[in-house]
Amino acid sequence: MVKTGVIGLGYWGPNLLRNLYANQRRGELVMCDSNPARLEKIRSRYPDVSFTSDCQDLFNDSSLDAIVIATNVSSHYPLAKEALLAGKHVFVEKPFAASIEEAQELVDLGKSKGLVTMVGHTFMFSPPVIKTKEIIDSGELGDIHFITSSRVNLGLHQKDVSVIWDLAPHDFSMLFYWLGEEPSGVSAFGHAYVLEGIPDVAFINLAFPSGAIGNVQVAWLAPSKLRRTVIVGSRKMLVYDDTEPIEKIKIYDKGVDIIEPESFGEYQLTYRTGDIISPKLPTGEPLAAEMEEFLSCIETGNSPKSSGEEGLAVVRALELADASLRKAD
Amino acid sequence: MVKTGVIGLGYWGPNLLRNLYANQRRGELVMCDSNPARLEKIRSRYPDVSFTSDCQDLFNDSSLDAIVIATNVSSHYPLAKEALLAGKHVFVEKPFAASIEEAQELVDLGKSKGLVTMVGHTFMFSPPVIKTKEIIDSGELGDIHFITSSRVNLGLHQKDVSVIWDLAPHDFSMLFYWLGEEPSGVSAFGHAYVLEGIPDVAFINLAFPSGAIGNVQVAWLAPSKLRRTVIVGSRKMLVYDDTEPIEKIKIYDKGVDIIEPESFGEYQLTYRTGDIISPKLPTGEPLAAEMEEFLSCIETGNSPKSSGEEGLAVVRALELADASLRKAD
Amino acid sequence: MVKTGVIGLGYWGPNLLRNLYANQRRGELVMCDSNPARLEKIRSRYPDVSFTSDCQDLFNDSSLDAIVIATNVSSHYPLAKEALLAGKHVFVEKPFAASIEEAQELVDLGKSKGLVTMVGHTFMFSPPVIKTKEIIDSGELGDIHFITSSRVNLGLHQKDVSVIWDLAPHDFSMLFYWLGEEPSGVSAFGHAYVLEGIPDVAFINLAFPSGAIGNVQVAWLAPSKLRRTVIVGSRKMLVYDDTEPIEKIKIYDKGVDIIEPESFGEYQLTYRTGDIISPKLPTGEPLAAEMEEFLSCIETGNSPKSSGEEGLAVVRALELADASLRKAD
Amino acid sequence: MVKTGVIGLGYWGPNLLRNLYANQRRGELVMCDSNPARLEKIRSRYPDVSFTSDCQDLFNDSSLDAIVIATNVSSHYPLAKEALLAGKHVFVEKPFAASIEEAQELVDLGKSKGLVTMVGHTFMFSPPVIKTKEIIDSGELGDIHFITSSRVNLGLHQKDVSVIWDLAPHDFSMLFYWLGEEPSGVSAFGHAYVLEGIPDVAFINLAFPSGAIGNVQVAWLAPSKLRRTVIVGSRKMLVYDDTEPIEKIKIYDKGVDIIEPESFGEYQLTYRTGDIISPKLPTGEPLAAEMEEFLSCIETGNSPKSSGEEGLAVVRALELADASLRKAD
Repeated sequence: MVKTGVIGLGYWGPNLLRNLYANQRRGELVMCDSNPARLEKIRSRYPDVSFTSDCQDLFNDSSLDAIVIATNVSSHYPLAKEALLAGKHVFVEKPFAASIEEAQELVDLGKSKGLVTMVGHTFMFSPPVIKTKEIIDSGELGDIHFITSSRVNLGLHQKDVSVIWDLAPHDFSMLFYWLGEEPSGVSAFGHAYVLEGIPDVAFINLAFPSGAIGNVQVAWLAPSKLRRTVIVGSRKMLVYDDTEPIEKIKIYDKGVDIIEPESFGEYQLTYRTGDIISPKLPTGEPLAAEMEEFLSCIETGNSPKSSGEEGLAVVRALELADASLRKAD
Repeated sequence: MVKTGVIGLGYWGPNLLRNLYANQRRGELVMCDSNPARLEKIRSRYPDVSFTSDCQDLFNDSSLDAIVIATNVSSHYPLAKEALLAGKHVFVEKPFAASIEEAQELVDLGKSKGLVTMVGHTFMFSPPVIKTKEIIDSGELGDIHFITSSRVNLGLHQKDVSVIWDLAPHDFSMLFYWLGEEPSGVSAFGHAYVLEGIPDVAFINLAFPSGAIGNVQVAWLAPSKLRRTVIVGSRKMLVYDDTEPIEKIKIYDKGVDIIEPESFGEYQLTYRTGDIISPKLPTGEPLAAEMEEFLSCIETGNSPKSSGEEGLAVVRALELADASLRKAD
Repeated sequence: MVKTGVIGLGYWGPNLLRNLYANQRRGELVMCDSNPARLEKIRSRYPDVSFTSDCQDLFNDSSLDAIVIATNVSSHYPLAKEALLAGKHVFVEKPFAASIEEAQELVDLGKSKGLVTMVGHTFMFSPPVIKTKEIIDSGELGDIHFITSSRVNLGLHQKDVSVIWDLAPHDFSMLFYWLGEEPSGVSAFGHAYVLEGIPDVAFINLAFPSGAIGNVQVAWLAPSKLRRTVIVGSRKMLVYDDTEPIEKIKIYDKGVDIIEPESFGEYQLTYRTGDIISPKLPTGEPLAAEMEEFLSCIETGNSPKSSGEEGLAVVRALELADASLRKAD
Repeated sequence: MVKTGVIGLGYWGPNLLRNLYANQRRGELVMCDSNPARLEKIRSRYPDVSFTSDCQDLFNDSSLDAIVIATNVSSHYPLAKEALLAGKHVFVEKPFAASIEEAQELVDLGKSKGLVTMVGHTFMFSPPVIKTKEIIDSGELGDIHFITSSRVNLGLHQKDVSVIWDLAPHDFSMLFYWLGEEPSGVSAFGHAYVLEGIPDVAFINLAFPSGAIGNVQVAWLAPSKLRRTVIVGSRKMLVYDDTEPIEKIKIYDKGVDIIEPESFGEYQLTYRTGDIISPKLPTGEPLAAEMEEFLSCIETGNSPKSSGEEGLAVVRALELADASLRKAD
């Protein structure tokens, strides 16, 4: 039984709290928000959860095992650092921190203290993303050539960070998870149309050590919502469309084969097209699995799937992409 | 009545010939291919069209007004140059030439000779592309912020040029036509997966003097055919999907408005969503309109919509994109 | 302020309660379910709502103005009758009653007592259905020729009534509302595949006095969910697809015109195809509008849009369709 | 080598001629149309095919083996009868004849003469329809419960026959082929909106001896083209959408299972949802396969897949449906 505190009850925190509340491993819960109105609103739903408006109460509570941080990005680092220094396991919402340095320091601190550091890359716990990982790892797609991903919609402009920091953490965490590697090169191109200095559209290129490349499109300006990822492998191709209600994943038995010439002469290319399969996906709320991962890693000492290292890798790519975009713009 | 010769009866030339044949303005026709089998095959369809296997016959024929060139890219420049030097109006298939220098020389030569030089950017004669141009010019979309375009499919790998030279001419000619400007910056990222040295996937970024940006995705490796262009304007947005049988264009009355604060305080953003309209498109074969444009410009002396200058602008962007891609790869 | 009791807290009742609870016109609320476990579960969510497990308490409470009935169909009639006899306004879930006789008696009783009798045909309060009604009434579609509607999905088989009684109330209430008339003829064809005696697929034909016809397809056995209604008018056509997240309604400017011969000779038909428009729909929960209608009609004495008469018309068509199906099968 | 004559060079005949012309088994060809302009137009395409404007020349040509009839429906019977009486194998376009009596007489005559009588139900030679037949016959779908089929579009109104005679032959021939049986009951409902006396929308119900039922929707008035057939089996379900460019067939591993109670108590239903598979379809023009079937059956003496019996079954259902519709209307 893990006694856990939740800091931040704004947009996302209540979702984490709800899933923690329903988890079998959780012990006592404490919730914390410096805004009394927010705290009050959530308290009425969880009358049996204790609460405080001062997060120091959590750091000082020696019976507390773990802290879940769902505040705005700029406070991730100071709160997580303090939590780790107080000997608490930490779960931090994505993006992990506001800079590579901050994220690196948190990873190092967690390691030196022997504490679990986990980042809320929820997509890594989502059934279609996990299924895609299994399909890639099985070799069914062959070598992964390239991945394109579009995550665009109208709204919601952030006022402090670019669209890259807001939306790309999802795609980056998925791509790095699927490929099992971080990019060796990142560049971006985009522009700020609505709010000066806050890019609202970006096209990000990623080069991976394996030879795979990625292209991620993120925008707050778009006529219709797209959540479409295409994986082109040497043997098969896969489309993951998160806006589809049923057929979220489709595997296309498609590819090109090179026919070597028998004697002299030119090689020939043949294009192969076979069945299209949309595999059944298990149901299950990603957030429930995420909270389960956090609590069970605390109990077992295992490293979580979306550990601080994964969070750091994402922050590294975000910082490079954002810097590249601002230079290009 | 314009006496016209057609050089090249491979994949595309017969389509041009067919539309020339049906055009009211055309005079006598001559067709030419150095490959006897090809020539023979087409001859049986047009028994009343004269023919030759030697293109010099066309250059030497003083009664011939115009020459249509539909050969492979590397021969565009020498053939077009010879035609212009022989005093013939020329129509050259896209891409106009294999380099900026070649294209520039052809444009200059055409001008100095007072001859029509036209390039086969067929999409500029396609009903949805023309309708989109009208909508943009009417101001309905407001200022154009950015345009994304995907042109991907499985196949057909070229053996001499990258996917950029093969597919991007379509998108470049559309974008430059719609925006009425050439890009001030071009870069690309991609890779060669199937044939060494022949990139088969590319992501191209374009910056325009007006402040608009573009992103063009081209690939010979893809699970399904995409021909999707999105135009985000300051007032409305437009999607042009050429794979849709009916609703090829949709106009979304969508956008963001900034509400300035009345006194002190922060601005607010409001997101606007209204009707979606799919306008009726006129029917008509683009190639017929293209041949009509060529012949009528010869008669009137007007400059064609897809003149040598437009062809040159496309070649310029292709060369920059291809060089950038090869550098990045 | 209308003091209201809710009977039945199973599947649907809690939704009605939630919307009543949020309504400004409602006075005191009382909830009732004979199943203690259900009652207990809902009580924890509404600690300030009084409750009882005996519906007689509601009938006997002279301060109570209205009763909302969300029990199974077979108990609609006895409960509604008792409520009306006790002088309460009643809202009954769809279908209104289990037979024409029952429904007729409730309508008559409500009238003679001067009480509001309303039936929960929620679709009549749904934005796309209301928008469609406005479009039809505006004459934009011309005369309505025919309407087809498909409401199919895998599951959930009822164990006491056919798929007609389960699903067709939605389509019938929409069609009668749009056309402003009841059918003069009803027939049906179908079969019981999974459970003997419980038809799980049915095709229903409707003839209306105006000359319009309808075809309604309902099934619990289907590979994918369909909620698609097509309205063919003499001037335009409309498609309402409730499974579409955005473009739920599309208006097609399509039709056939008869060109009368000028002198002797045959008429000609010309087919007209124009723009396709997907109008913006207002947001708003249908159930909230439905509860508002009930309470405001009680206050004003107006007849609700989905009055007992409308409920009776639906029951009449259901009974005819079901009888026809069982005869044909 | 089968010497064959083609009568009727209007809309469809030239397609049959083209495929006959390309077939390896065909011997000399003769074409015939009483309209000189039509004959002239086709002659220019096939200068090596002999021709006549008088079909008696064909019946009288003792060297001619077979006659293909692609005239309007009313002349199918007299021409086919004369051809059979002259000892020629006959291929007749769909629908086979204008009445059950006519069709029956042709079948009987063909049998008594030992001649091949084939009907042009082209869909029986179309790859998705054949694939569906194979899937059904393999038992993968289990018992076939019901089949629904929609074939609607705007246009083209016929001036002599109802929409049933025009469009339903396609669906009827597919359904009877798949199920391997003729319906034991047929009824229809519909109306004539544009041309008096010519129903332009119809809903047809079919009952089959096996217990399967069918519902076929045909209309010349519709906002968008539908060619969608759904087959619900006891084990799996299949959707065949002929308007889809790629995924024409999808097999849904979906169904309901009844769990019998172990001791006393009620059965339970469980709904099963698995993978969705879109099988690769072979390519190939249905008309080429159809002509191949005709010529090879003449050579081998086998009965064609779409023999006169199949054509008669379709005519029988058409006549019943049309009569039912006119009675109901």
